[in-house]
Amino acid sequence: MYLVPALGVVGLVVMLIKSAWVSKQDGGDSKMAELAGYIADGAMSFLKAEWKVMSYFVVIAAILLAYSGTLIDHSSPLIAVAFVIGAVFSAFAGFIGMRVATKSNVRTTQAARTSLVQALKVSFTGGSVMGLGVAGLAVLGLGGLFIILFNIFVPEGQAITGTGMKTAIEVLAGFSLGAESIALFARVGGGIYTKAADVGADLVGKVEAGIPEDDIRNPATIADNVGDNVGDVAGMGADLFGSYVATILATMVLGQEISSADDFGGMAPILLPMVIAGMGLIFSIFAMFLVRISNENSSVQKALNIGNWSSIIMVVIASLPLTLWMLPETLSLRGYAFTNMDVFYAILVGSIVGALMSWVTEFYTSMGKRPVNSIIQQSSTGHATNIIGGLAMGMQSTVIPILILAAGIIFSYAFAGLYGVAIAAAGMMATTAMQLAIDAFGPIADNAGGIAEMSGLPDEVRGRTDNLDAVGNTTAATGKGFAIASAALTALALFAAFVGIAGIDSIDIYKAPVLAMLFVGGMIPYIFSSLAISAVGRAAMAMVHEVRRQFKEIPGIMEYKAKPEYEKCVEISTKASIREMMLPGAIALVTPLLVGFGFKDVFPETSSAEMLGGLLAGVTVSGVLMGIFQNNAGGAWDNAKKSFEQGVLIDGVMQYKGSEAHKASVTGDTVGDPFKDTSGPSMNILIKLTSIVALIIAPHIAVDNPHSYKEDAAVEIELSDLTFESGHFDINVHFEGQDGIVLVDHAMVDLATERRMAHVMMDVNHDAMRSIFGIEGGEFQFDGHGETMDESHTRFRVVGPFRMGERGDVECEFVFGINADNSISGDLYVR
Amino acid sequence: MYLVPALGVVGLVVMLIKSAWVSKQDGGDSKMAELAGYIADGAMSFLKAEWKVMSYFVVIAAILLAYSGTLIDHSSPLIAVAFVIGAVFSAFAGFIGMRVATKSNVRTTQAARTSLVQALKVSFTGGSVMGLGVAGLAVLGLGGLFIILFNIFVPEGQAITGTGMKTAIEVLAGFSLGAESIALFARVGGGIYTKAADVGADLVGKVEAGIPEDDIRNPATIADNVGDNVGDVAGMGADLFGSYVATILATMVLGQEISSADDFGGMAPILLPMVIAGMGLIFSIFAMFLVRISNENSSVQKALNIGNWSSIIMVVIASLPLTLWMLPETLSLRGYAFTNMDVFYAILVGSIVGALMSWVTEFYTSMGKRPVNSIIQQSSTGHATNIIGGLAMGMQSTVIPILILAAGIIFSYAFAGLYGVAIAAAGMMATTAMQLAIDAFGPIADNAGGIAEMSGLPDEVRGRTDNLDAVGNTTAATGKGFAIASAALTALALFAAFVGIAGIDSIDIYKAPVLAMLFVGGMIPYIFSSLAISAVGRAAMAMVHEVRRQFKEIPGIMEYKAKPEYEKCVEISTKASIREMMLPGAIALVTPLLVGFGFKDVFPETSSAEMLGGLLAGVTVSGVLMGIFQNNAGGAWDNAKKSFEQGVLIDGVMQYKGSEAHKASVTGDTVGDPFKDTSGPSMNILIKLTSIVALIIAPHIAVDNPHSYKEDAAVEIELSDLTFESGHFDINVHFEGQDGIVLVDHAMVDLATERRMAHVMMDVNHDAMRSIFGIEGGEFQFDGHGETMDESHTRFRVVGPFRMGERGDVECEFVFGINADNSISGDLYVR
Repeated sequence: MYLVPALGVVGLVVMLIKSAWVSKQDGGDSKMAELAGYIADGAMSFLKAEWKVMSYFVVIAAILLAYSGTLIDHSSPLIAVAFVIGAVFSAFAGFIGMRVATKSNVRTTQAARTSLVQALKVSFTGGSVMGLGVAGLAVLGLGGLFIILFNIFVPEGQAITGTGMKTAIEVLAGFSLGAESIALFARVGGGIYTKAADVGADLVGKVEAGIPEDDIRNPATIADNVGDNVGDVAGMGADLFGSYVATILATMVLGQEISSADDFGGMAPILLPMVIAGMGLIFSIFAMFLVRISNENSSVQKALNIGNWSSIIMVVIASLPLTLWMLPETLSLRGYAFTNMDVFYAILVGSIVGALMSWVTEFYTSMGKRPVNSIIQQSSTGHATNIIGGLAMGMQSTVIPILILAAGIIFSYAFAGLYGVAIAAAGMMATTAMQLAIDAFGPIADNAGGIAEMSGLPDEVRGRTDNLDAVGNTTAATGKGFAIASAALTALALFAAFVGIAGIDSIDIYKAPVLAMLFVGGMIPYIFSSLAISAVGRAAMAMVHEVRRQFKEIPGIMEYKAKPEYEKCVEISTKASIREMMLPGAIALVTPLLVGFGFKDVFPETSSAEMLGGLLAGVTVSGVLMGIFQNNAGGAWDNAKKSFEQGVLIDGVMQYKGSEAHKASVTGDTVGDPFKDTSGPSMNILIKLTSIVALIIAPHIAVDNPHSYKEDAAVEIELSDLTFESGHFDINVHFEGQDGIVLVDHAMVDLATERRMAHVMMDVNHDAMRSIFGIEGGEFQFDGHGETMDESHTRFRVVGPFRMGERGDVECEFVFGINADNSISGDLYVR
Repeated sequence: MYLVPALGVVGLVVMLIKSAWVSKQDGGDSKMAELAGYIADGAMSFLKAEWKVMSYFVVIAAILLAYSGTLIDHSSPLIAVAFVIGAVFSAFAGFIGMRVATKSNVRTTQAARTSLVQALKVSFTGGSVMGLGVAGLAVLGLGGLFIILFNIFVPEGQAITGTGMKTAIEVLAGFSLGAESIALFARVGGGIYTKAADVGADLVGKVEAGIPEDDIRNPATIADNVGDNVGDVAGMGADLFGSYVATILATMVLGQEISSADDFGGMAPILLPMVIAGMGLIFSIFAMFLVRISNENSSVQKALNIGNWSSIIMVVIASLPLTLWMLPETLSLRGYAFTNMDVFYAILVGSIVGALMSWVTEFYTSMGKRPVNSIIQQSSTGHATNIIGGLAMGMQSTVIPILILAAGIIFSYAFAGLYGVAIAAAGMMATTAMQLAIDAFGPIADNAGGIAEMSGLPDEVRGRTDNLDAVGNTTAATGKGFAIASAALTALALFAAFVGIAGIDSIDIYKAPVLAMLFVGGMIPYIFSSLAISAVGRAAMAMVHEVRRQFKEIPGIMEYKAKPEYEKCVEISTKASIREMMLPGAIALVTPLLVGFGFKDVFPETSSAEMLGGLLAGVTVSGVLMGIFQNNAGGAWDNAKKSFEQGVLIDGVMQYKGSEAHKASVTGDTVGDPFKDTSGPSMNILIKLTSIVALIIAPHIAVDNPHSYKEDAAVEIELSDLTFESGHFDINVHFEGQDGIVLVDHAMVDLATERRMAHVMMDVNHDAMRSIFGIEGGEFQFDGHGETMDESHTRFRVVGPFRMGERGDVECEFVFGINADNSISGDLYVR
C-alpha cells in the first residue's frame, strides 16, 4: 500500500531532475528572452486570474461538501479536505506544466539554432516534465490520501467490504471532484482563451493588416502564444489529471464491493488500479529515454511513436504477472463472477481501445489521407462546400470510434463485469505520463516556432521548429482521441460506481421519467457546445476591436517603431475566458444536482437516482459523439488548410496559398478552431464532471433498497440438491438502520428436493458484530427455513430466529443467492 | 368500428371534390402550361423511377415478411399483404399530392394575376387535397384493414386481450412498415433530389452565369421546381402519413394489452386512437373553410393560423366527451392504473407539445427574431463567423424543444402510463390533414412564383406569389417542428409497444451490452446525416457539370434562342437521388435486424431484445437532437440570407444583397440547405423506421419471460386482510408452449393475516379454454395456496391443482398481483 505514493514520489523526483535540466539550457538572446518573458507573464497572469475565481468556488464548494458530509452515514466532513487537496494538486499540476512549457519554448528555439536533435530533446523533455508532474501528483495524492483515510476510517479487523472502507473511498471521491472541477475551468477557460486570441489575432493581423502569423507587430500575438500554453498545456494536463484520478477512483469504488481472498487483507481489487498507475508512471519514465533521434533527417514522429508504444506494451506485459499475483483466482462483483486472468484481459482491452482510438483519430485528421483530401477537393467549389465536407467528415468519423468503444465496453464487461470496464479504463490511463509528454511537446514546439518568427531568426531555425510543430499537430489530434476515449471509459466506470452507491439495481429507460432524462442529458452537450463556441466568437470580436484600436491609436506599430500593448490583449483574453466559462461550468455542475435533488421522491415508481442515471447516460453518449465529431472535423479542416502550404492538386491544377480554394479552406479552419480546441475537448470534462457530481451526491439520493443484491442471470448454476457443510463468506447485515458487511465463520446450507425448500444455519463472526453494531456476546447464530423466490432458483428467502449475543433471539429474514463459485451473497434483515 | 373507415371515405370524397375544383381552375396561357407540363412530367418521372426501385424492395421485403410470418405464433403470412397495402397506399398518397401540387402551382400563378384572395384559395386548396388524401387514406387503410384482420383472426367470444387480437395487430404493423418504408425513400430521396437541383442550379446559374433564380435559361431550373414538389410535397406527405399510421398503430398495440370493461367489447382502448384520427380528419375539413382572406392586404399567415388553431382546439374539446364515453372509468396497463379522464389529459398534453414545438421552431427560424438577427450580425465578419453563428444557434435551439418533449413524456406518462404517451402522440397527430394542407401550400406557392418568373409575368403577380411564398417558408419551418415532435412521440409509443411484444420488462442501460448499443444507436444519426449531406454535395456537383456542358454545347441558350435540355437535369437529379438514398436507407432498415438477430442468445444475462431497445433509445435521442439542430440551423441561415433582400442594419450601416456580409450569409444558406431539407427531416424517418422494424421483429426475438406481468411500484395498495368474494377478471394462461388470455368467471381470493399467506380459488371460463387451448370439458377450477413474494406484498404465488376439463387435475402455479382497482393481473402456469 505504501508502494503507491512512493512510486508517485519517484515520478516527481525524475520530474524535478528533468525540469532542472531544462532550466539549465541556454535561454537565447535578449530579444528572445524578452518575448519569452511576455509569454510567461501572460500565462501566469491567466493562472492567477483563474486561481482567484477558483478559490471562491473551492471555498464555497468545500463548505457545502463539509456540511453534506455530516448528513449521511457513509461520508464525513473530511470530504471537503480531500476536495481542497484535489483542487490544489490539480492547480499545482497545471502550474508545473505551464512553468516548464514557458521555459522550454524559448530554449527549444535556441536549441533549434544548433540542431533538430537538440531541439527535440529540449521540447520533449519539457513535455515530459508536464507528464511526470501530472501523473506523479495524481499517484502521490491518491495513494497518500488513501493511506491516511484508511487509517482514519477503517477500524482494525473490519472487513474491507464494510462501512469503514466505503466511507474512506467516498471521502476520496472528494479528491477527484476537486481535480475535475479545476480541470473544468482549465479546459473550458483555456479553450476559450486560446481560440479567442488565435481567431482575433488572425482576423485583424493576417486578414486586415496583411502581416504574417506570429508577427511581433500584432498586439494579439503574445496572447496567441500564451493561449497555446493555457489551452493545450494546462488545459490538457488538467483534463488528463482529472481522468486519471477519476478512473482509478471509480475502480476503487467497485473494488471495494468485492470480497477478495487475497494476501493484501482483501484490499487487492482496491489497490490494483493504483499499483497499475504507479507502474505505468515508472514505465513511462523508461520509455521517455527511447524518444530520441540521431540526426537532422530522422523522423520525429517515429521517435515519439516508439516511446508511446513501448510504454503501452510494457504496461500490458507487466500487468499479467501483477494481476495474477495480487488478485485471488476468482472474484465476484454484484453477482458477476470472474477470474484474475479475466481482469488482465480487461486491462488488455482497455489498452487496445486507447491505441485504436488514437489511430482512427490520426487517420481522420492527417494530411494526405482520404478524409482531409476530400475536404481539400470540396474547397474548390467554395466556402460552403468546404464546410459541408468538413461537417459530413466529422459526423462520419464517429462511426469507427463508437464501434470500438461499444466493443470495448462489451468485451471488458464480458471478461470482468463492471470491475472489468473500470480496470480497462485504468489500464488505458496507465501511460498518461507518456501520453501527456507527447501532447505537451506540441504546443512547446509551436511556441518555439512563434518565438523564432518574432525574433527574426534564420529560416533554417524556423524550418526545424516547423518540423516539430507539424508532428505536434498530429500528436495533438491523437492526444484528443486518447482523451475522449479515456473520458468515455472513465464516465462508464463512474456510472457503474454511481449505481452501486445510489443503491439502485437498474437504470430502466423504459420508465418514462428516465427516458425523459436521457433526452435532457443528450441535449446538455449541445447547449454546452453552443455556449463554448459563441463564447469564442464574442471574445474574438473583443480582441479584434482592441487590435484595431491599437493599430489606429498607437502610431508607428507597423514600422516597428512603437511596441504594441501586448498586455491589454492578454487581459482581454484572460477576462473573457474567465467570464465565459462560468455558464457552461455551472451547467455541468448544477444539472446533476437539480435532477438528483429536484426529483427526489417525486415519482413513486422511479427514484431520482435512476433519473440521474438516465441523465448521465444521455450526457455521456451525446458528449462522446459531439466530442469526436467536433475534434475530428476541426482537425481535418485545419490540416486541409495546412495542405495548401505545400500546394494541392485539384481537378488537375496545383493550388497554393492565396487561391480561392485556399480561402475557402481558411473559412473551414476558422470554424474548426473552436470545434477542436474549445468545445470538442470540453466534452471530456463535461461527461466526467457530471458523473463525479452524481457520484458525490449518490449517498444523499440513495434508494433504501433492501434487495440491493443484484440478481444476475449471468450466474447460471446447476444446483441439484446442494448441501454446504462449512460455508465461509460475507453477508450484509441490516440492523436498526445500520448496514454492515459481516463474515460468516461457519454455515450449513441445505437446498432440498426440487430446489424449492431451503434450510440455512450460520455462525456469524462476533468480533465483526461487536465492531460494527456494538453488540456484545459470544454467540451469533441464525437458523432459518424457507424456499426459492424465483423461477431460476438462484435466490432464496429463509426466515427464522437469530441468536444475537446479548440481545437474545430475534426474528430475522435472510435473502440470498448462490454465486457461480458456490459462495453466497445475501442480506440478513434483523427485524 | 365501421365508423372509422367511413370517416376516411368522407375525407377522400371531400378531397376529390377539392381536387376537381382545382382542376377546373384556369391553367393560364400556353407558355405557363408548357412550363407546368415540364414540372409535372419531371415529377412523374421521379415518381416512376422511385416506384420502380421501391417495387423491387417491396416484393423482396414482402416475401421475407411472409416467410417470417409463418415462424411464430402471433403473426401470419398475411403481414406481407398488409405491408404491400401500406406501401401502395403511401405511394398513392404521394401520387395524389404530387398530382394536385403540379396542377395547382400554375393555377395559383394564373389566379395571382387577378387577386391574392384567389391565389391563396387555389394554393391552399391544393394543399388541402394533399392533407385530406394522406389522412383519408391512412384512416381508411388502417380502419378497413383492422376490420378485416379482426374478422380473420379473432374468434368469436375470445377476449380482446387474447392471442387473436394480438395477431391481428401484429399483422397490422405490416401496414405501418410498408408506409414508413415508402416514406424513407420519399423523404430521403426527395430531400437529395430537391437540394441537388437547388444547389446545382444556383451554383452555375446565379453565381457563374449571373442569371436570376428560376430563369428559364437555366437548364436546372425545371429540376429545381420539380424538387420542391418531390421533396417538400411528396416527402413531407409520406413522412406524416408514416407518423400518422405508426402513432395510431402503437397506441393500438398498447391498447390491446388493456383489459377494458367498456361498451365496445373491450376494444375501446384499441379503437380510440382511430376514432380520434377520424374525428381530427373531419374537424380539419371544417377548419379548412376558415382559411380565407378578404382582400389584398389581409394577413395570409393569420388566415392559416386561424385554420390550424381551430382544428387543434376542436379536436381537444371533442376528445373530452369522446374519451369519457368510450373508455371505462378505470383502466390499467402493465400494472399502471389510470382513469378515462387521465387519458383525456394525455391527449391534451400531446396537443400542447405539438403546438409549443411549432412555436419554438418558428421563433428560432423567423426573420426579425433574435436568433436570425444574431446570425445576420455575425455575417459581417465573414463566412466563418456566419457558420459558427448558425451552428451555435442550431445547437442552442435544441434546449427548449427537448425540455418540452421531456415534460411531455413525463406528464403524459404520469397521467396514463405508456398508453398516455402513445395517445398523446395520437392526439397531436389528429390534425395531420390540416397541418399537411398548410405545409403543402408552401411549395405550391413557391412553384407558382417560379412559373410567374419563368413566364415573364408582371411584377404585381410575382409580388402576390412572393407574399404566399414568404408565409410558406415559415409554415415549412413550423411544419418541420411538428414533424420532428410527432416522430419523437411516435418513436416513444413504438418503443413502448416494442417492449411489450418483445416480452422484456426493462431496458437497463446499466447492463454493458445495452449501454454499448445506446452508443451505437446514438451514432446512427451521425452517419445517416453524413451520408445524406455528402449525397447532396455529389449530386449537386453532377448537376453543375451538366449545366456547364449545356451552356457550352448548346449555342443560343443565353439569348433565349435555344431551349435547354431540362429533362437531362431532371434525369440527373432523379438518378442521383435514387442511387444515393440506398445506403442511408439500408442503414435504417438493417441495423435493427443486425442487433436483434445478431446478438440473439449471445449474452446470457442480456437479451438481444433489450440491446435493441438500447439501440432504439440511442437512435431516438440522438436523432431528435440532430433533427432539431439541423432543421433550425438551416432555417435560420436561410432567413438570415433572405433578410438581406430588404436590407439589414449591421454596426449602424444598412447592408443589402451583394455586400460581403450577404455573400457570407449565402454560404450559410448553402450549408443549411442539405441540413434543413435533406438530413434534418430524414431524422424523422430514421427514428420511426428503426422503431417499426424493431416492432416487426419483436416476436422473433421475444424473450420467454414467464413473469411478463410488470411489477410496478405505482400500484400502491394498502391491503389489510383482503377477501374477494367474487372476482371477475382476465388472467394469462400458459399451457404447453401456448399462451392465452382467459376470463375468470368467478374467483375467491383470501389474503391472510400479516399478508404473507394467500388462498385462491378460481373458475376459469370453459369457452375460452376450448377456443384457445382446444380443451373440452365443463369444469376448469383452480385451488391454490401460497404466500407473498416480495416485501411490498403486492405479488403472490400460490400452487395447487387445476381441474382442467377433460384433462383432469394438473398441478399449477399462479403468480399474481393486485391492481389499484382491486382487480387481479396474473399468470397461471400449467406444468
